[in-house]
Amino acid sequence: MAAAAEAAAGSGPGSQPPAQRRLRILSGHLQGSPASRAPEAERFLSPSQCRAGGAAEQPVASTIPKKRQEILKWNGWGYNDSKFIFNKKGQAEFTGKRYRLSGMVLPVLKEWMEKTLGASLEHKITSRAFLNTSDVPPSIVNEEFLQDLRATKISYSQEAEDRVFRAHGHCLHEIFVLREGMFKRIPDIVIWPGCHDDVVKIVELACKHNLCIIPFGGGTSVSSALECPADERRTIVSLDTSQMNQILWIDEKNLTAHIEAGIIGQDLERQLGESGYCTGHEPDSMEFSSLGGWVATRASGMKKNIYGNIEDLVVHIKMVTPRGVIEKSCQVPRMSTGPDIHHFIMGSEGTLGVVTEVTIKIRPIPEYQKYGSVVFPNFERGVACLREIAKQRCAPASIRLVDNAQFQFGHALKPQVASIFTSFLDGLKKFYITKFKGFDPNELCVATLLFEGDREKVLQHEKQVYDIAAKFGVTQTYDAGACVYFYFAFNYRGISDPIHVYEQIETAAREEILANGGSLSHHHGVGKLRKQWMKESISDVGLGMLKSVKEYVDPNNIFGNRNLL
Amino acid sequence: MAAAAEAAAGSGPGSQPPAQRRLRILSGHLQGSPASRAPEAERFLSPSQCRAGGAAEQPVASTIPKKRQEILKWNGWGYNDSKFIFNKKGQAEFTGKRYRLSGMVLPVLKEWMEKTLGASLEHKITSRAFLNTSDVPPSIVNEEFLQDLRATKISYSQEAEDRVFRAHGHCLHEIFVLREGMFKRIPDIVIWPGCHDDVVKIVELACKHNLCIIPFGGGTSVSSALECPADERRTIVSLDTSQMNQILWIDEKNLTAHIEAGIIGQDLERQLGESGYCTGHEPDSMEFSSLGGWVATRASGMKKNIYGNIEDLVVHIKMVTPRGVIEKSCQVPRMSTGPDIHHFIMGSEGTLGVVTEVTIKIRPIPEYQKYGSVVFPNFERGVACLREIAKQRCAPASIRLVDNAQFQFGHALKPQVASIFTSFLDGLKKFYITKFKGFDPNELCVATLLFEGDREKVLQHEKQVYDIAAKFGVTQTYDAGACVYFYFAFNYRGISDPIHVYEQIETAAREEILANGGSLSHHHGVGKLRKQWMKESISDVGLGMLKSVKEYVDPNNIFGNRNLL
Repeated sequence: MAAAAEAAAGSGPGSQPPAQRRLRILSGHLQGSPASRAPEAERFLSPSQCRAGGAAEQPVASTIPKKRQEILKWNGWGYNDSKFIFNKKGQAEFTGKRYRLSGMVLPVLKEWMEKTLGASLEHKITSRAFLNTSDVPPSIVNEEFLQDLRATKISYSQEAEDRVFRAHGHCLHEIFVLREGMFKRIPDIVIWPGCHDDVVKIVELACKHNLCIIPFGGGTSVSSALECPADERRTIVSLDTSQMNQILWIDEKNLTAHIEAGIIGQDLERQLGESGYCTGHEPDSMEFSSLGGWVATRASGMKKNIYGNIEDLVVHIKMVTPRGVIEKSCQVPRMSTGPDIHHFIMGSEGTLGVVTEVTIKIRPIPEYQKYGSVVFPNFERGVACLREIAKQRCAPASIRLVDNAQFQFGHALKPQVASIFTSFLDGLKKFYITKFKGFDPNELCVATLLFEGDREKVLQHEKQVYDIAAKFGVTQTYDAGACVYFYFAFNYRGISDPIHVYEQIETAAREEILANGGSLSHHHGVGKLRKQWMKESISDVGLGMLKSVKEYVDPNNIFGNRNLL
Repeated sequence: MAAAAEAAAGSGPGSQPPAQRRLRILSGHLQGSPASRAPEAERFLSPSQCRAGGAAEQPVASTIPKKRQEILKWNGWGYNDSKFIFNKKGQAEFTGKRYRLSGMVLPVLKEWMEKTLGASLEHKITSRAFLNTSDVPPSIVNEEFLQDLRATKISYSQEAEDRVFRAHGHCLHEIFVLREGMFKRIPDIVIWPGCHDDVVKIVELACKHNLCIIPFGGGTSVSSALECPADERRTIVSLDTSQMNQILWIDEKNLTAHIEAGIIGQDLERQLGESGYCTGHEPDSMEFSSLGGWVATRASGMKKNIYGNIEDLVVHIKMVTPRGVIEKSCQVPRMSTGPDIHHFIMGSEGTLGVVTEVTIKIRPIPEYQKYGSVVFPNFERGVACLREIAKQRCAPASIRLVDNAQFQFGHALKPQVASIFTSFLDGLKKFYITKFKGFDPNELCVATLLFEGDREKVLQHEKQVYDIAAKFGVTQTYDAGACVYFYFAFNYRGISDPIHVYEQIETAAREEILANGGSLSHHHGVGKLRKQWMKESISDVGLGMLKSVKEYVDPNNIFGNRNLL
C-alpha cells in the first residue's frame, strides 16, 4: 500500500524556485598542492552564525517548512496536494502540479486494481481526515529543563501536531495507526537547533536533565526507527535537524562541499546544481530524506554504480554525542590509521548522537543524461543479461530490472493519451513487442537504464550495453550482488487484522532472504523492525562490539530510540 | 636506506614454478539467482582438514618457507640472493636471478651515490654477517602451556633464529638494531597454526595461561607493529599465519574467492592466475605481505583506481578473538544494517585478534596491460596534469608522478646497455627530451602509467590520457586526494646517533603533513610508531570508541602488541 504511493511520489522532485543567495565558493586556494587536503575550516565557517544569532548571509529556505503539516500529508507519504482520487466518471486521477502524472487521468488504473487486487470502488474504507488533538498523549516536560532551553533561544514546540508528525516514519503499520488509531507514546517536545553549536547545547541539557533524544531528519524511515519506545518514562525530545540545512562551503579545487546535515536531498541537489555540481547520491526517498539520515543509516543511492554509496561519498562527519563531539582532525578521502571511526557513525541510526555537519564529494553535473529500456521475453533472460553487463563492468549509472507484475503496474499508471496519433504509435510498439517479437505480455520484463557522463562516452557506453542486451542469452557472473526491491500490496477487505497479516508475510520474506544468503541492503536500515535480523547476521561478538561503543559514547542512553541493539 | 632496497625489490615478483594441484572451482550453482549470494560454506570447506590432520588435497607450498631464514635476509629486506654489491672494477651489480636487474652491472649508480649522498666506497660500515644466537634473549615459556600446546599437535619453535625473524618488521631502526645490536625483547615462541581451528585453540590456550599473542603475517610492517613491548612480562607468542595459505574455493559465478589469511600476495596472485583470475590488489610489499596483514592494516594497493582498496575488495572476514570468533553470517557485498563490523577489524593491527579467512572479490585477468610514461618540464606541470586526469575521471589503473630526484635515482639504476645501437637510441631520446623539447634535466619529472582492461578500451583510455598530458597546463581538481611517497636516504658517516637524526626528520615531516591537512595513508598503518599521530587525528571520543571495543573483545589484553591505542 505504502509502496504504490512511494512509486508515484518518487517520479520527480518538487519545483519550487530556489531562493536567491550566494554560496561560499572556494577555489584555487590549494594551487599546486599534490594532496587533496581540506580547507582550514576556521577560515570559511563561522559556527556561531546560527540563524538565531543572525547570520551575515540570508539562509536558504528549505522546500519543506518547519511546520511540516503546512504542505505534507499527516497520514501518508508526500505532499498534501499530490494524491490519487477517482473522478466523477470513476476514473483515477493524480492531483496537484508537482509531478509528470499530476493533473492527469489514468484510465486503466481502476481496472488494474480490480483485476489484480480484487479491489472495488464500492468498498471504501474512510480514514480520519484530520488529526484529533484530543487523541494525542499529553506533553510531559520538566519546567526546569524548559527554563534552561528558553535561555538558549533555540526554537521548540509542544504542540500536538508537531509532535505527532515526528512520532513515526513511513512503515505500513505506522501509517495505519495514523489512519485508524493513535500512537501510545510520541515525543513530548520538538526542538529545532539552528546549527552544530545548538545541538551541543541540547545534548548537554539532555544529559543534565536525563532526557531521551530521538534525532529526526526527513522522517522517511521505514524501519520503525523513529517510533518512541512505549515504556520510555523520561521526556522524549524529537531533535529535528531540518533548520540546519545550509551548504557552508563548496571547495571547487578538491570537489567537496561542507553541508549541515539537516538539508534534504532535493534542496541539496538543487542548490549544488546552481553552482554546476551534484553529489550523485539519489536514494528513492531523496525528495524528503536528509543528508544526516543518509549517513546515520548507511544509505545507498540508485546511481551508486557511478557515484558510490554514502560511505564512498563522505569525507568528513561531525557528530554530537553525550561523550562529546566526534570528528577527525583532517579531511582526506582515506586513511590507513586504524579502524575508520566514520564507520562507527555510519549505520548508528541515532543511537550514538546527532550528525550535524558532513563534508561530501561533489562532481560537475554530467554533461549528458540518457534514459533507455530493454525488453526481455521473461525475467530469467533479463537476469542473464544484467549478469553479463555486470561481468563486463559496464553497468550504467542506474540499471533496474522490472518484473512482469511491476511492468503491468507501470502500464496501469499510463495517463490518457493526448492524440490519436500517439495512441496509434503506442499500439504499434505494443504490437511489435508482443506479436512480432513473440513476447508474451504476461511474461515479458523490462530493464530501465540511465546513462550519465560526457556525450560521446554515454553514446559509446549505451552501444556497449545494447550490444550485450541484443544477445541476452549469456548467463554469467554478477560481481557485486543485486539489490532486489519488493513492491507489495494486498486488498485487506475482510481481514480482521491486516497489519498482522502483512507483518507475517514480510517476516517470512525476510527469513527466506536470510536463509538464501541474502542481506538487507539499500537505505532502509535496521531500526527496531529488523533488530532480530541484525543480531543473527553479525554474531554475538559483533553485536557485543557495537554495544561496547554505545556504552562508552552514551552510558545513560540519552539517545534512547532503541534502534539496532 | 631501507627505501632504496625496497624500490629494487619491488620491481617484480619471484618466478618459482607453481606447485601442481587442483583448486575447488564453483560455478553455475546459483544459476538464475538475482542476488550475489555466497555459497554455503559447509558444502565446500572442511575446516578440520588442516595440514596436520592430513588434507585430502595436497596443499600448495608457499614461495616463502616456514623457516624464513632459508631464503630471506636476516637483517634486511627480501631474498638472500638479491642484493647490491660492488664488483672488482668498483661497479655496482645486483645479484641473483629473480628480477630484471638481477645479474646486471649498474655502471652509473656509484657516481650517483657519491654525488648525491656524498658516500664513498672507502668508507664501508660492516654489519654482522650472521645472527649470534648468544645475543638473543632466552625463551621463557611455562611448561604447562607447552604440554597443552603439544597436545594440539600444532607446530612451534623456540629456536633463536625463528624468534628473531619474527621480532621485527622493516622500519629503519629495526634493521639498524639487527645490524649493530639486538632487541631487548623478542617473542618467546613461534607457533604455526595450520588452519582457523588451530588459531581458535591457540587463542584459548593463551587466555587460559595468560600469554601475549602477536600475530605475524608477512613481516613487512614499517610501523613498529611487530616489535615486542619491552616491559611485557608474560610469555610472548608469535602467531605466524604463513602455514594458513590455501585458496579454499573460487566461486566463478559470483567472482569471489575464499582464502586463508596467511597467503602472501605473490602466491595469491599466481595461484588465482592459474584459474584465470586476479584480485588486482597490489601493495608495493605484495611479494611478501599477507592477505591477513592487508586486512589488519587497511591496506591500499597501487591499482586501487580500478580495483579499490582492501575495504572495497573484502566480502567476508573471519577473525578469532579472546571473546570468540567474529564473522557475519552472510557473504554479500554490502549491507545497510548498522555499522559495518568489518570496519572494526580492518585497521585493528593485531590488537583484537587474528584474521584467519577472508572472502575477496576476484576478476578475470585483464586481457591487456600497457605501461607508459609522460615527461613534464617540472613537477608543478606534472601535478597540474594529474589533477586534470583526476577531474576527468580517467585515471589509469596506476599513475605515479616521479619527481626529479627520483627520476635521477631511476637513471642511476640503469643497467649496462647491451649494444651500441641501444645506447645510440637512448642518447637520441635523451637529446629529444633535454634539448629538443627544452626540458631541463635537473627539473623535469615523469609520470608512470599502467593501463589495464580489454584491448580496445585500453587504447581509447590511453589516447584520452595522452591527449590531456599533451596540454598539461590546466590546473584543476583532484577528486580523491593523492598518495605522496617519500623515499628518504642520507649518508650517516660521522653522525653519532643516525637513528635519532632519522627519526627527528621523519617526525618533523609527519607533523608538517598533519599541519597541512594531510593524513597517513596507504598500507603502512599506525603500529606503535605513529600512535601519537592517530590520537591527534581522531579526537578523544574517537579513540575512546576504539578502546571500548578493545576492552570488550580482549579485556585481558591477550593481543598485547600495543599498536594503535
